[in-house]
Parts: sequence; structure tokens; C-alpha cells
Amino acid sequence: MDILVINCGSSSLKYQLINTETEEVLASGLCDRIGINDGKFHYKPKNGEKIVKNADLKDHEVAVKMVLETLVNKEFGIISSLNEIKAIGHRIVHGGEHFTHSAIINDEVIRHIQECSDLAPLHNPAHLLGINACKHLMPNTPMVAVFDTAFHQTMPPKAYIYGLPYEYYEKYKIRRYGFHGTSHSYVSKRTAEFLGIPLENSKIITCHLGNGSSICAIENGKSVDTSMGLTPLEGLVMGTRSGDIDPAIIDYIAQKENLSTAEITNILNKKSGVLGISGLSSDFRDLLAADEEGNLKARFAREVFAYHVAKYIGSYTAALKGVDAISFCAGVGENAKFIRGKIVSQLEFLGITLDEKANLETIGKEGIISTKDSKVKVCVIPTNEELVIARDTKELVSKMI
Amino acid sequence: MDILVINCGSSSLKYQLINTETEEVLASGLCDRIGINDGKFHYKPKNGEKIVKNADLKDHEVAVKMVLETLVNKEFGIISSLNEIKAIGHRIVHGGEHFTHSAIINDEVIRHIQECSDLAPLHNPAHLLGINACKHLMPNTPMVAVFDTAFHQTMPPKAYIYGLPYEYYEKYKIRRYGFHGTSHSYVSKRTAEFLGIPLENSKIITCHLGNGSSICAIENGKSVDTSMGLTPLEGLVMGTRSGDIDPAIIDYIAQKENLSTAEITNILNKKSGVLGISGLSSDFRDLLAADEEGNLKARFAREVFAYHVAKYIGSYTAALKGVDAISFCAGVGENAKFIRGKIVSQLEFLGITLDEKANLETIGKEGIISTKDSKVKVCVIPTNEELVIARDTKELVSKMI
Repeated sequence: MDILVINCGSSSLKYQLINTETEEVLASGLCDRIGINDGKFHYKPKNGEKIVKNADLKDHEVAVKMVLETLVNKEFGIISSLNEIKAIGHRIVHGGEHFTHSAIINDEVIRHIQECSDLAPLHNPAHLLGINACKHLMPNTPMVAVFDTAFHQTMPPKAYIYGLPYEYYEKYKIRRYGFHGTSHSYVSKRTAEFLGIPLENSKIITCHLGNGSSICAIENGKSVDTSMGLTPLEGLVMGTRSGDIDPAIIDYIAQKENLSTAEITNILNKKSGVLGISGLSSDFRDLLAADEEGNLKARFAREVFAYHVAKYIGSYTAALKGVDAISFCAGVGENAKFIRGKIVSQLEFLGITLDEKANLETIGKEGIISTKDSKVKVCVIPTNEELVIARDTKELVSKMI
Repeated sequence: MDILVINCGSSSLKYQLINTETEEVLASGLCDRIGINDGKFHYKPKNGEKIVKNADLKDHEVAVKMVLETLVNKEFGIISSLNEIKAIGHRIVHGGEHFTHSAIINDEVIRHIQECSDLAPLHNPAHLLGINACKHLMPNTPMVAVFDTAFHQTMPPKAYIYGLPYEYYEKYKIRRYGFHGTSHSYVSKRTAEFLGIPLENSKIITCHLGNGSSICAIENGKSVDTSMGLTPLEGLVMGTRSGDIDPAIIDYIAQKENLSTAEITNILNKKSGVLGISGLSSDFRDLLAADEEGNLKARFAREVFAYHVAKYIGSYTAALKGVDAISFCAGVGENAKFIRGKIVSQLEFLGITLDEKANLETIGKEGIISTKDSKVKVCVIPTNEELVIARDTKELVSKMI
């Protein structure tokens, strides 16, 4: 079954056409600068050359139309008719407390996604633009919403309630939601499979370390705690996001710099993290290169990052009352061997021994990087959020038919 | 040596007269509502009745004068002449990066305390009022400043730097400072002594759990990480303080409730924590009583608190790469046996076994509450910040003479 996976931002649209039998990506790409000037259309068919062209992407519907037309284009296309697209899967950032699983998109689901817009004002309205554009252009193709938050809805109240006046939860639903749910779900399942341990009787910590990073404590296959919160700002120091800080710092900066909370929150989201610490880059590859050239701030930013990850793993081992396996995924987790090494070296008290050679060799592929006699297994499990969305979409749509 | 210990708030002044040879409290009390109406003066001499009387406490100097006059009062007094007070020790909340130890108060020290006022605008100016009042009334008595932050100045940069633009540290000194330093210092030293382990080769986690709560990771006697940050708002859920939250929540509340950051920070400091969660009380004794009567929100608040403490201990075990001993102190830590039990039960993966009986019996006194064969020792060590201030004061003044 060919499934089109769409991830819509306010001015961008990422897409992949996936064959769910072979799990092969038939084509992928990006519509960039939608609704702004200088729009760009990227397209990469399997076995073909990547195409990038200027495009007047005045709205999301124009963008979706361009994707569909390209997919069936005689010259570059990868399918002969749009009928081959059996379903569309949409990534949705925030499903609030309503969505505990992926859902076939209907009017009620759209209404609920709308209701959650308040919790993700930059994301959910953009997702709805993508949904509406697809609905208009492919009215008979079933669509599925896959939520970043859904996997974490199994967290117990003690993990999701903040130490705030309780009425903020009742009135405004302020609580921990967590994100990267499709990734944590996929990686934890795959970890159990890969190690041959029963998921339903396991304690796994998944570390999704990319430009955005989060950690998840997973007990018997269910998320019981995670580091991102109401929004994806909380938790680890990230590429450009601050992660945890003293909440009093916001008022302190507000007074010093004469900025509004919205302006400061923007700085915390976009100019902080390892970019802020290093003053150099949010990209860990840049930081590694700079570190190797002797840039001490780049080295320091990497150290801070690794230290925070190690502390969160310690914290979640307490949350789980122990841990069987720790898995790394996403750009940094799958590739940054030195950072993984630093993190694991901090955790030997858990009975973990790093297999140095395996760690150095396991780059962007599945593997175990702890020694055979390590009490806790440490793995690298490349994540694939688009594939999870395609799988979920296929599963729900198959039930429908 | 009789030493007067003073802890000055903006409208209150707590005091103790301590004999540093016997370490006995000769007298103690409180001047309340200084500079406001309805002032109250509390005084309790050793072996005597507690006295509370109305007093017109127009400023801190009037308050200090009243303390001194009462101490030498023919009827209630405990000393015959003010000459018996050999030194005065002042508790100072914020010593910034300047003070790594306690210091004899002179003009330069006063200037530095003033400079740190920016970081603790509610506390440092009040401490200076107390220092100036004492200086005026007892010009020849040496005074010592003991800082809440000093003990934590050994933290490495990776523990004290936030994931913020680095210039905020350079320009405004925004970093983790930590508080309760006198308590963490005392309790860690006493833990090593009590267990007969060498402090200079030890990994200890101290849990100061009171109305304000913080946790500290101590390696070889030196603080390497702690849960409070730029201010005492960060870290654990406390009596009325939120502790860690998603920093984006502040802007979210600002918009929902139309409040300024200063107003929200005030709510986070005074109306949050277990008070906010339970809607009942910030006092853990009230919460226990309500829990026992079936109040589910009180039970929940206690659960959240214990869960957060356990997670921090896990985190700091990673920071220390292991742990030899965990100590509980302050009101909740010394007395709340059920909460201690809940915390420790989460940590069995570290090789800890709780001695249930010892835990139930160790209330407000020193004791080991883990079993003999527990790999990590768990202790209750009552803290005594005033005594630490008196000891530090004596030590510095003795060197002076």
C-alpha cells in the first residue's frame, strides 16, 4: 500500500511516499517558504536525481497540488495515477489529552485538533492547513492523524502534573504532554525486538537526540515519563532550545533586557541550547569539528549536553526503578559516538560497560554498543518517524476497509 | 564563646545566642513584622518560658536593640553584659561568585554583598539592614557573613551553566548558584563522620527537604551539583514553590491570565508547590493528616513530591557516577518517615534496602535507615544552619584574634 506521509509546518511541507509492504521510500521532498516569497520545491524520487526548483507556493493547497502532480509526472513521477496513493498520514504535534492513539481523520477529529491549537499555536493550525488542502485535492482518500503526544498519554499523573496551582491544569490543561512520541514508541518496540526481550516486561529508556531532543522512560511498552513538557522547550539542552532553567530567570531577563515573556520564550526556543552556549552552531557536527580544532566553547557545549543526558537517564532509571536497556536515536544519538561515549561513561554505576569498538563502529545503523556482560544493554536504533506514520496509517485504514 | 546568630529578612529577624563550646542555644527568638504595624517580639531563653509581646518595630535597628536589651535583661536575660557576645554571625542568602567561604564583615565585604543584591533582591538588602543595625549598636564586636551559596561554588561549569545565550552569564551572571549551602555542607560532613567513611573519598547526596527543598551531589566533600539555581525557585516541588517547570509555561500563563512575569514568578514562589497541587497546605504535616483522612489531593501532592526527590537522587547518582550515602535533613527529611519510605523504595536498583523499623523510629534524630547489607547507606542527619553559622563565625573570629 502506497501511503503519502505529510508533515506540515506553517511555511513548509515535508512529504514522503512510502510503500508499506516493502517499507521503501518511493519519493520524498519538501515545499519550503509557503506563503512567503522565494518558494522552493524539493523532490527526490527513489533511484533518481534530486530536483530543487523555484515555485510560487502561495498556500498549502498549491504546495500539496505540486507534490501530487510531481508524483504522477510522466518524466520524474514515481506512480502512474493518484489512485495508487491509498491513504495519507499526517503528523500532528499536539493531540492534547484527547488523542491516545492515531486516528482516522473525520470532522470530529479535525475539531479536536483545532481545540489543541491553543497548546501548539505554531504547529496545529499548520497541520490543519495541510489536512484541508489534501481533503480538497483528494476527497476520497482516507487520512490518518498521528500525534507526537499520543504515546505519552500513558504517563501517570505524578509524572505529568507540575507543581503549579491545580486550577491551571483544570482551566488550561497545563501539564506535561511530551513529544517525539512516534519516535520513542518505535525505538522502544524495536529495542525489545532487537534484543529479544519481552516488551511487555521491560524497562527501556529511549534517548531521541537530534536538533530537538527528548528522553523517555518506558515501562512494559508504555511511556511513564518524558523530558519535554507542555511544549517541546522543556528537558534537555538542545540545538537551539534551553531545556530546563530556573523559571525565575525569565523575569530576571525580562527586567534586564526589557523584553516581553513572548520575546524571551522565543530566545529560549531559537537562540539558546548548544547554540547559545557555544555561540557557534546548533548543529552537533559543527560543534564536533570546532572542538577538534580546539574551540573550547564548542567542547564545553558538547560536555554540557552529554552531562544533561546522563543525568536524565539517572533520573528515569529511578522513575522506572531500574533499567534493562537504553537506546539512542535521531541525528546525534545515531551518529555522535563521542557524545554517546561520554554519556555512557557516566553511567557505569548501573552496571553498564561500553564496548568502545562497537560504539565507534555503530554509526547510523542498528547495533549494541555495550559489552556482552553489561548488565544494562545500550543500543543504537535509528528512528524513522515517517515510517511509523505510514505504518499507523496503513493499520487504521486497513481496519476501515 | 557566645555568638549571636542573625538571619534577617525584609520584615523579620530570627536570632539565636549560641555557646560554641557546649553548642547549646542560650536563647532564641524572632522579631516579626518589622517596619509594618502590629510588630511582635518572640524570645525563648534556655530553661525559661517563651515570651511573645507586641512591639513597635519601626526598623531593623529597633529590632536588634530589643534583642540585645532582652538578652541582658535582669529578669529574663541570659547573659549579664553585651561584652559576653564575642561575635555576630549573619546568614546571607546570596554571595554570588565572589564568596566561596564565610567572611569577616568589613567595608569591602559589605560592598560585595550589596553587589549581589541584584541576584537576591528580597534577601541581601534585608541582610544589610541587619548588619548595619548590629554595626551601629555593637561597633566593636566582630561580625561574620555566612553565605547560602558559598558551599556550591565548587560546582564545575557544566553543572552551573544554563543552556542560554552565553552572554547572559557574562553580562548578568545568570547561572546556577544553589542554596542551603550551610545545611548541605554540615550534613555531608556529619554523614561521613557518622558512617565512619572518609569525606575526602566519598559520594554523598544530601536531601534538604523542608518548606524550601534542595538536593546536592557532593563528591569528596565538595558540591558538584545542586537542584536550586539562580534563585531558590528551581528544582524540587516545594511547600509553595513550583520547582522545575517547562519555561514556556510562563508565557502561556501570562497570556491566559493577563499577568506580568513578576506576578507569575510570585505565584510560582508563593502559591505553587504542594500547596498548589493539593489546594490545601504547604505544610507536609497538614498534608499527612489530610491524606490519612482520605484527602486524595493531599495524597497526590505527597506522591508527586516523593517522586521528584527520587528522580533527583537518580540524576545526582549519575552526576557522581555512583553514590555511597544518601542523607535526609530538615523538617520533612528528618520527620516524614512515609515520604522517606516512598523515596527509598524507588531506589532499590542502586542496591539500597530500607530498614523499615529504623525508618519508622528515626524521627528528628540521627540514624541509619538502610539495612546493614544495603550497598548505599541512607541516613537521617538533623541539620542545624544556625550552629554552622556560629561555628564558622567562631572559627574566623578566632583566627582574627
